[in-house]
Amino acid sequence: MEFSREALIESVSSQMPEKRWKHTLGVMKTSVELAERYGGDPERAETAATLHDVAKYWPVERMREIIEDNDLSAELLRYDKQLWHAEVGAFVAEKEYGITDREILDAIRFHTSGREGMTLMDKIVCLADYIEPGRDFPGVDRIRKLAKSSLEEGLIAGFDSTISLLLEKRKIVFPLTLLSRNDLVRALEEKE
Amino acid sequence: MEFSREALIESVSSQMPEKRWKHTLGVMKTSVELAERYGGDPERAETAATLHDVAKYWPVERMREIIEDNDLSAELLRYDKQLWHAEVGAFVAEKEYGITDREILDAIRFHTSGREGMTLMDKIVCLADYIEPGRDFPGVDRIRKLAKSSLEEGLIAGFDSTISLLLEKRKIVFPLTLLSRNDLVRALEEKE
Repeated sequence: MEFSREALIESVSSQMPEKRWKHTLGVMKTSVELAERYGGDPERAETAATLHDVAKYWPVERMREIIEDNDLSAELLRYDKQLWHAEVGAFVAEKEYGITDREILDAIRFHTSGREGMTLMDKIVCLADYIEPGRDFPGVDRIRKLAKSSLEEGLIAGFDSTISLLLEKRKIVFPLTLLSRNDLVRALEEKE
Repeated sequence: MEFSREALIESVSSQMPEKRWKHTLGVMKTSVELAERYGGDPERAETAATLHDVAKYWPVERMREIIEDNDLSAELLRYDKQLWHAEVGAFVAEKEYGITDREILDAIRFHTSGREGMTLMDKIVCLADYIEPGRDFPGVDRIRKLAKSSLEEGLIAGFDSTISLLLEKRKIVFPLTLLSRNDLVRALEEKE
């Protein structure tokens, strides 16, 4: 079971509203650019980006079932449903689209939260998701600017904006987002 | 080995600069007030408050030794030294001041970070530490106001201000602080 680039695009785009597919196209484009800028693999980054939101519009109960039936992180179920699609997306990419590349699967799995020890591919897709051309939220231009010179600086600013917004809205903050942010801050401190 | 209130005050006050002892007196007073307002035990809350910063001015290496030698949370050593004194303080309260009351010891241990499932005593001492009369930081008046009607609302605002400040200053955020804040937000949602 292997999909050509075109078949993958056709299949994934059919699973979401046009607006979300437009966002996905933006993440694909930005992932390729970031990969080229920072020495990643543009083709594999694009594949991860194509699939990153594949499960975004799946029914919540279907996502819950997949998480429960496949021993995916049950901890996730305690948190906002918005976070579930990343874990489910990685599962679907492997099971339904035959992706075996661990780095691609992980970049899909951690595209929303990040994780400690993010790979180059994780960073590319996660940051592209923050700054693709269609994104418009307070602070996005600052993140875009930082992304021109450092993946890590861009991601720290991105995670900080997510955490601040959630605090402000009195929403639960997914702990992994903070751990990812702390880990990037530490890594930059050690480089200094 | 048991200390009278006066002996405890004399011994603890001798271990810190006058300014910090003044802060401790503020936390004692506010802890008693919060205990009275929210059905806690004023006397035990005062004891916890008296001891909460007992190790604050200990040499860093002495704190590190205590943490390492006594299997206290080694994870803590990865984080800012400002956090160590709480864990060490609880240890000292037990070993040197003969405190056996688990709730007092825990209130000392978690007075900076909070924890998931904070007890009434934890909440009182932690919030008193944020709002005692000597405190002056952006947002403290809002926290004081909230503390008049809800321990939990006061603490959420306190933790939010700590997290926001650390993000802004690009400092590491202790994950337990976020977990405590999330836990309080969840508890209030469930009450609604």
